[in-house]
Amino acid sequence: MSEKGRIEKPVLAVDIGGTKIMTALFTSGGKMMAREVTPTLAGESAPTVIERLCRAIDSILEHNNLVMARVAGIGVACAGGIDSTNGVVVTPSPNIKNLVNVPLADILREKYGVGVFIVNDASAAALGEYRYGAGRGVKDLVLFTLGTGIGGGIIADGRLYLGARGGAGELGHMTVDVNGPACGCGNTGCLEMLASGRAVERDVISRLKKGEKSILLNMVNGEIEDITAEQVGAAARNGDPLALEVLARAAYYLGIGMVNVVNIFNPEMVVCGGGMAELGDLLIGPGRRMVNERAFSISSQAVRIVTAQLGNEAGVYGAAAFARERMTRGTV
Amino acid sequence: MSEKGRIEKPVLAVDIGGTKIMTALFTSGGKMMAREVTPTLAGESAPTVIERLCRAIDSILEHNNLVMARVAGIGVACAGGIDSTNGVVVTPSPNIKNLVNVPLADILREKYGVGVFIVNDASAAALGEYRYGAGRGVKDLVLFTLGTGIGGGIIADGRLYLGARGGAGELGHMTVDVNGPACGCGNTGCLEMLASGRAVERDVISRLKKGEKSILLNMVNGEIEDITAEQVGAAARNGDPLALEVLARAAYYLGIGMVNVVNIFNPEMVVCGGGMAELGDLLIGPGRRMVNERAFSISSQAVRIVTAQLGNEAGVYGAAAFARERMTRGTV
Repeated sequence: MSEKGRIEKPVLAVDIGGTKIMTALFTSGGKMMAREVTPTLAGESAPTVIERLCRAIDSILEHNNLVMARVAGIGVACAGGIDSTNGVVVTPSPNIKNLVNVPLADILREKYGVGVFIVNDASAAALGEYRYGAGRGVKDLVLFTLGTGIGGGIIADGRLYLGARGGAGELGHMTVDVNGPACGCGNTGCLEMLASGRAVERDVISRLKKGEKSILLNMVNGEIEDITAEQVGAAARNGDPLALEVLARAAYYLGIGMVNVVNIFNPEMVVCGGGMAELGDLLIGPGRRMVNERAFSISSQAVRIVTAQLGNEAGVYGAAAFARERMTRGTV
Repeated sequence: MSEKGRIEKPVLAVDIGGTKIMTALFTSGGKMMAREVTPTLAGESAPTVIERLCRAIDSILEHNNLVMARVAGIGVACAGGIDSTNGVVVTPSPNIKNLVNVPLADILREKYGVGVFIVNDASAAALGEYRYGAGRGVKDLVLFTLGTGIGGGIIADGRLYLGARGGAGELGHMTVDVNGPACGCGNTGCLEMLASGRAVERDVISRLKKGEKSILLNMVNGEIEDITAEQVGAAARNGDPLALEVLARAAYYLGIGMVNVVNIFNPEMVVCGGGMAELGDLLIGPGRRMVNERAFSISSQAVRIVTAQLGNEAGVYGAAAFARERMTRGTV
C-alpha cells in the first residue's frame, strides 16, 4: 500500500481518562467523523481496563462500518507519565494506577495490526489546541490542564515537545512554594497542591469544617466532604464570599505558575484547558494581571493567555494529530 | 559569492558581559582560532560601549590579519533580554543598563557589512555547550548559568529554543518561594534571589553582621561588605561552617529549581555553568539527590546533571554557532 494511500485513511483516537474512555475517528484532514464515550472502570485490573478499551475501539469501528485494515493507525492519549518512545505508561496517574508498566502500544499493535502511538493526555491536549483549537497559527504555546490535578503540554517552535522520554510538561509539579504542602508526586509545594480542583475542594472543606458559612452547605445538604470544585465554581458565580476567596487563592497560585512559564518559555500563547478553566476570567484573570506585572516585558508583551477551545475533546484531537504526525514524519 | 564559500569563512563571535567583552574567531568547523578580552566599561553610555565593542572587533581582526570582508558574519552573545528577531537588547541586565533599546545588530551590520546575529548570553552558553561542550550528542538539554545572577538556556529536540522573541530561558526568574523576597525583575521569590552568587553574598554578610564567626572575616580583614561568593566558596572548601551552611542553603534552592526544570523539560542533561558552578558537587550534589527523590521517575532516570565544560568561553562558542546556524539554515 502506498504511503499516500495509508495517510488518507482515517485515524482512530482514544483518550483514556480516570473516569471515561473517549474514542473518535478523524479524517486525514483532521475532521472528527464520530465520537463515543464509555466509562473507564479505572479501579479494575489492567486486563479489564484494556478489555474495555478494546471494546470501545471495536464499537466505534462497528458503528461506522469500518474495519481496522481501513484505519491508518491509533493515537492514544493517556493520563500519567507516558514513555512515548516505547508506548508504556511509566508513572501512575492517581486515577489509573493499574496501567503502569503495561506495554499498551505493543498490546494494541499486536491485536489490531496498525501503528499505535501513545502520548500523555496533557501533551495531546496541547497538540490538539495547537492544530485545531485556540493555538492555530501559534508556534510557541504552553497549555495548562486545570482539572482535579494540573498537567501541561508544550509546543516549541511548532512542534510538540516531549523531552527525552515523553515526560515533559509536568507544569503542575513545579514547586512554587518551597515551604508548601507535600505532594503525592514526591515533591513539595507543587502548583497542583495550590491551584487544582483538588486544592480548591480541600481548602473549602477545611474552612467549612472550621465553621465558616457558605451557600455550599445548602448545595450539598451539609455533606461537606462531597463538595466538588465545580460546585465551588457555581457558588462563586452566585457571589458566595467563601467560594470567591478560595478560588482567588487558587487563581493567585496559578498566576505564579503562569509567570514562571512565561519567563521560561517566552510563549506566544498560554492556553488553559480542563474543567477548572471553564471558570474563565475568575480563574485566569489574576494570572493575566500577574504576568503583566511580574514577568519580563519581552515575554509578557508577547503572550496571550486564553481558554482552550476544544473542551474535553482536546485529547482525542491531539492523539489523532500525534499518530498522524508520527506516521508521516516519524516524529511530531 | 557561493553559499559554500561564505560558510567556509571564519565567524567572529562576541560575548558582552557586565565586566568584559570577549571576542573570538572560529573556523567553519567550530574551532577557536583566536580570543581576546577587554573591559566592557558597562557603566558608560551606549555609544561608548559600542565604540569599545567595535574596537575589540577591529583588534581581533587586525591581530589575525583579517578584514571583515573575509568573515562570514558576527555572532553576539549579550546579557539581558534579547530580541533575537530584531537584534535589540530589550530588557536591561543589571550590569549593562545602557544598551537597552539600542538596535545593536543594525549598527554592527551597517558598520561591517556582514550578517549580525544577537542572542542572550545564557542561551548562547547552552548552544555552545550543546555543540562543543558537555552536551555534545544530547538532544534535550537545559543549562543554568550560576553567577552573580542566574540565567538559563534551553536546547529542545536538538535546537536552541528562544521562544516567541528570544526571551526564553529565564530560569533564574521562576518563583520557587511564593513568600520569598522581592526580586529586582518585578517577580517574587525568584530562584536568583535564593541561589545566586549575590544571594550567597547577601546571606553571609547578613549573618556576619549579626555576629556569627567565620574565617571570611580574616579573609577580608573585617570588611564584611566586600565579601564575594568566590571567597565564600574558598572558605567552604576550607571547612568554614558558616560558608558551608550558606552554600548548602543555596544548593537546596538550586535543587528545587532543578526538580522544576526536570519535571517541565524531561531533559537528558542539566548543565551548570557560570562561576558558582566551579564549586562542583558542593553546589550541585544536593540538586542531584533532590531530583532523584522528588522529580517524576520517567524524568529523573533520564537526566544527567553535570558541570559545563567551556568555562567562560561558552558564550563566544555559542554566539559563533548561533551566527553560523542562522546563516546556513535561516534558523537555529
